[in-house]
Amino acid sequence: MKKVALAFDLGGTELRAALVDDMGSLLSFVSLSTDAAGGPAAVIRQIELLAETVLAETPDLSPIGIGIGAPGPLDPDAGVVIAAPTLIGWHEVPLADILHNHFQLPVRLENDANAAALGEWRYGAGRGAGSMVFVTVSTGIGGGVIADGRILHGRRGLAAEIGHMTITSEGERCFCGAVGCFEAVASGTALGRRATARTRPSDGSALRKLAADADVTGRHVVEAARKGDADALELLAAEARWLGIGFTNLLHLYSPDVLVMGGGISHGFDLLHDQMAATVRERAMPAYRNVPIVTAQLGRHAGLIGAASLIFDGYGKSDPGPMSPKGTDNPDRAIPAGKKEASNG
Amino acid sequence: MKKVALAFDLGGTELRAALVDDMGSLLSFVSLSTDAAGGPAAVIRQIELLAETVLAETPDLSPIGIGIGAPGPLDPDAGVVIAAPTLIGWHEVPLADILHNHFQLPVRLENDANAAALGEWRYGAGRGAGSMVFVTVSTGIGGGVIADGRILHGRRGLAAEIGHMTITSEGERCFCGAVGCFEAVASGTALGRRATARTRPSDGSALRKLAADADVTGRHVVEAARKGDADALELLAAEARWLGIGFTNLLHLYSPDVLVMGGGISHGFDLLHDQMAATVRERAMPAYRNVPIVTAQLGRHAGLIGAASLIFDGYGKSDPGPMSPKGTDNPDRAIPAGKKEASNG
Repeated sequence: MKKVALAFDLGGTELRAALVDDMGSLLSFVSLSTDAAGGPAAVIRQIELLAETVLAETPDLSPIGIGIGAPGPLDPDAGVVIAAPTLIGWHEVPLADILHNHFQLPVRLENDANAAALGEWRYGAGRGAGSMVFVTVSTGIGGGVIADGRILHGRRGLAAEIGHMTITSEGERCFCGAVGCFEAVASGTALGRRATARTRPSDGSALRKLAADADVTGRHVVEAARKGDADALELLAAEARWLGIGFTNLLHLYSPDVLVMGGGISHGFDLLHDQMAATVRERAMPAYRNVPIVTAQLGRHAGLIGAASLIFDGYGKSDPGPMSPKGTDNPDRAIPAGKKEASNG
Repeated sequence: MKKVALAFDLGGTELRAALVDDMGSLLSFVSLSTDAAGGPAAVIRQIELLAETVLAETPDLSPIGIGIGAPGPLDPDAGVVIAAPTLIGWHEVPLADILHNHFQLPVRLENDANAAALGEWRYGAGRGAGSMVFVTVSTGIGGGVIADGRILHGRRGLAAEIGHMTITSEGERCFCGAVGCFEAVASGTALGRRATARTRPSDGSALRKLAADADVTGRHVVEAARKGDADALELLAAEARWLGIGFTNLLHLYSPDVLVMGGGISHGFDLLHDQMAATVRERAMPAYRNVPIVTAQLGRHAGLIGAASLIFDGYGKSDPGPMSPKGTDNPDRAIPAGKKEASNG
């Protein structure tokens, strides 16, 4: 019988669930809008509901465990969400214990960015790498690091806060209060802001047309550049240069075998790559210059697939944590019928 | 009987050797000027000679292994010095194998900055930390990272190239060719350069007097500031701000439990600390603001002590590498007498 895990990706806007096999394939998938204002109890109820839906689609498969990616900061060993900024009322929620009690399955919790990094490492663009840096460039910049064969956690699981690495003394102040954060100059938001500043509503530009005369977004810039728009191409060249400066730092600091770029702006990876690579060649010490920079392969499901792989890898099994004492509880037991009914009611 | 290891710190100017016990104490110590121009054979001969001298001082103790810190890049698993920029002719030198064949003891090789980090972690300012960042601020800026209980290596052991992290778009071009490297703005060299630019020979300033009217160094600035010189204090405040910006990045990227500062400029740690801490508080995300920044405790012997601890910890014993197959060879056998005579000749 296929080995499968139940995986969740708990985001501030969307909650996703899937049954994932140990080849990294999604066997079933459902999602709904996170009840972010409802507090932990409401969201946990959503998680239970999604689990039922997913499992009902594949009645012949019993998951061997549950992996969850959730917003940080969180404590992966204790299975506790410390404080999720996008989820109201989530402070010190022992999510792994709660779900273990409900489902009677081993549960592993990981920071969402780390879960996505793990997915790309196990099943995507980072397969076979000893060390890998995963960077998502979209509204903000985030990421996760695989260092010498395992997730880099650091104190309180807070390592790899890539977006708030200072790389310049220029640019607008970051929401965090500092000037020069990688995110403040190189995120999709920053790219959109530069495109908006360069144009005006109804100026006839390709960028504003794509934006229906509203503010231009990073995705609009990629779209316009793909059609050959000169402004958009120039904006992407500057964007690629900022990304190259930040990526060079990540090469120097983590020395990965591969750097994987994901997130919305990676849809323009082919347009960005040459200038990013040129910037790395120009700025990196010789030993780091030939490290491949590639685009992510798993798309928006990287986090779900990575969460599942927390279970398949027995990841962190030797750590103290919820999996150790509970990992062998009823490994072949699916959700109890009574719980299913309760969640349906 | 005491458990001891033979430790070497192979630098471009000085070669040091010590017998170190498993409490991190130096039982005997010798050093000489590295024959950096003589090529690997000459330096290896110096290593053999120093070993004899050290062991002759403590004839009743037999080391259980040999730990060496050497300039990177090097491959710690294979025990190979890849290319030591300060040592002529050192390319792909299998130093661990060579010394193993000579001494018939397990040999572990590590990047010198990592060895010093390991020393501070095991026996110095980082004792008890799960993760630690060690930064040396002297002529350049270097460092080593302990991540989740072990040295962070990355591809080819090249992680933690801290000095060439870009943190600004200002300042003089770094020797590496980039602008804005942490080292280019915050090293002792950069501090000395700013002090030199701010003064003139025979201008009567405290800084130039300390420098005997030659170029001012970072150490002179620390010395003058300690005497209350206003120029020097202002220079140190700017220096502390650059250090704070770089350290904030390191907190975000590695999330250590403690950041340890060593190197020549750390002699001014007490004068720098408040402004460094204020900069971190101003720039770091809230969860990182209270991480202690402390001064190194082991001084110039950190590398030797860390190299020895490679042996005591059985560090990396499970890795493929020179220690695995050879680790159990004659563990109680000291240097053969014949070799001793040869080295004396």
